[in-house]
Amino acid sequence: MIRRARERQPSPLPPGRVLALPGQPRRGRPFRVLILGGARSGKSFTAERLLAHRDRVEYVACGPLPSPGDPDWAERVRLHQGRRPAHWTTLETLDLESVLAGRAPAGFLVAGPDSAAADRSPGDVASPESDARGGLGTPVLVDCLSTWLAGVMDECGLWTGGPDADKNLAERVDGLVDAWRATRRQVVAVSNEVGSGVIPATASGIRFRDELGVLNARIAAECEQVWLCVAGIARRLR
Amino acid sequence: MIRRARERQPSPLPPGRVLALPGQPRRGRPFRVLILGGARSGKSFTAERLLAHRDRVEYVACGPLPSPGDPDWAERVRLHQGRRPAHWTTLETLDLESVLAGRAPAGFLVAGPDSAAADRSPGDVASPESDARGGLGTPVLVDCLSTWLAGVMDECGLWTGGPDADKNLAERVDGLVDAWRATRRQVVAVSNEVGSGVIPATASGIRFRDELGVLNARIAAECEQVWLCVAGIARRLR
Amino acid sequence: MIRRARERQPSPLPPGRVLALPGQPRRGRPFRVLILGGARSGKSFTAERLLAHRDRVEYVACGPLPSPGDPDWAERVRLHQGRRPAHWTTLETLDLESVLAGRAPAGFLVAGPDSAAADRSPGDVASPESDARGGLGTPVLVDCLSTWLAGVMDECGLWTGGPDADKNLAERVDGLVDAWRATRRQVVAVSNEVGSGVIPATASGIRFRDELGVLNARIAAECEQVWLCVAGIARRLR
Repeated sequence: MIRRARERQPSPLPPGRVLALPGQPRRGRPFRVLILGGARSGKSFTAERLLAHRDRVEYVACGPLPSPGDPDWAERVRLHQGRRPAHWTTLETLDLESVLAGRAPAGFLVAGPDSAAADRSPGDVASPESDARGGLGTPVLVDCLSTWLAGVMDECGLWTGGPDADKNLAERVDGLVDAWRATRRQVVAVSNEVGSGVIPATASGIRFRDELGVLNARIAAECEQVWLCVAGIARRLR
Repeated sequence: MIRRARERQPSPLPPGRVLALPGQPRRGRPFRVLILGGARSGKSFTAERLLAHRDRVEYVACGPLPSPGDPDWAERVRLHQGRRPAHWTTLETLDLESVLAGRAPAGFLVAGPDSAAADRSPGDVASPESDARGGLGTPVLVDCLSTWLAGVMDECGLWTGGPDADKNLAERVDGLVDAWRATRRQVVAVSNEVGSGVIPATASGIRFRDELGVLNARIAAECEQVWLCVAGIARRLR
Repeated sequence: MIRRARERQPSPLPPGRVLALPGQPRRGRPFRVLILGGARSGKSFTAERLLAHRDRVEYVACGPLPSPGDPDWAERVRLHQGRRPAHWTTLETLDLESVLAGRAPAGFLVAGPDSAAADRSPGDVASPESDARGGLGTPVLVDCLSTWLAGVMDECGLWTGGPDADKNLAERVDGLVDAWRATRRQVVAVSNEVGSGVIPATASGIRFRDELGVLNARIAAECEQVWLCVAGIARRLR
């Protein structure tokens, strides 16, 4: 029943129109962009427009993979995929540290213009040697830090009370922030603003809100640009 | 017990002060404004200030009508009414398509300066022929799209699982967006920002958040001006 | 389990860096600043940076005192304290009216650079006669209006249905707004944005959201500056 709402994405600009990056990346310099916003505020669309003029883009989906058990999520993922240009490469992984370092990430799938997923080895994707236009020179779109955090909190056993859950989570988050700080790739990351409602009803909701708020601020502190989306309109915060 | 809070509205400006529209509407051109903000952020007040200098205003309330069963809501509606100038006309309807097209809306009530509700026929209100200052030339204030959406979702049977609920809702929303795009009236609409908290606890909460987020973005994409209110302060997004 | 997240605060600027106030306070003129933002958006940090260059600061904590029954809250308070310079004075009180008027507040504790809490009488702290650098000339940081409101709603019996709860709350809120309007002190107050999620699940959540939204707007209307924080980035609203 909730599928229909997902078919209409915010589309504040005519299709194909590019949102120019004010301030162009320079070769060899980091160029890191964070796109923030509430649910359905046009974050992903804004991120895609920022990179619409690029020859190649590596799209990194951090959400759970489509599964037969969740047709709505699968449908949404399919629609997002359909919106992306055919020449983009899609990775599905939580291993953002490797992506940012230009290494082959663990446990990913690839869908791209010039190969079937099964035909590629991980090293083909992210290695700068493997492709003149790929590797470090290919911009990355990370969509999104919120689903990355949710997935990592799950992996670390936060909800099942694993013995080292807090410690493991802190290491993963610190690792991401370090990799973001050190990356030489051009990267645009999307993340959710979740802290402007009343106190969440559950302890896990409070924890997620707090972790994501701190993560967003830590990432934002290491960005060349930060944008906030409201009703499909992107405004620059930095 | 919750009535008292509702008696004090945000009042960041001295009463009667007008918020000038930067960019004046031109005759025959559309002039559509969206005022966004969280709960109690001063959205309605801002919309009223935008139109405070106009001779006539058609105020369209999309909320449920006051009923004996909900004294708090009735009280709030009464206070909102008391804040509006006596020369404004009030319509209470979900039929925004007709309002935007300048037709008489279905199922409405009228309270205005020059007649009792019972004395008027629908055609008196919105027909451009019926009144030199009324009709298409009279600006409209829609308060608000959030209550409109909630009412329409209810009418379409979203919460009771009606067989064509999703399809009917999509048609109503598409119809509103089309009417907004086509309108020749000057219109200021208020809507809520509801997507910046954690994931809602209920499926209906998630659905409403998603539908409203997409609706806000679709409407915003067809506006001459978009404003965001925070703590009674309105800032222009576009 | 939720302690670890609280140890990493947003730190978008190098430590010690000062956020210059655009527009300096003038002697004898009010200088009132409101810092708004969602949870973990860097509000407290921003407020502290605004006053980082001052010789003395009176820090007013409105939250509940640390207690053995809530180690997480106690830990968070301890971390906040550790972040503040050693030469700041800390008051813990809900009596903001006295603080703003330069009177000794009721029921407070003091932790400061030049005395132990037990050695001081209330009059030592806020009386302008007692200290050439203290009193009215010492800037105040109020952290935060949200916890002040929650505490006052509790004191007024809002949740237990006291007979005059609504009336008492209205008087306390009006008293704070009056004191804020009249103060001759330089004051920076922090408050939460809580109105941009879906409708809260409980009546008390709705009431708190509405009261805080109106309070924020009333305070903002009487400020020389208002800032909004998102992901550790402060933007000026007024």
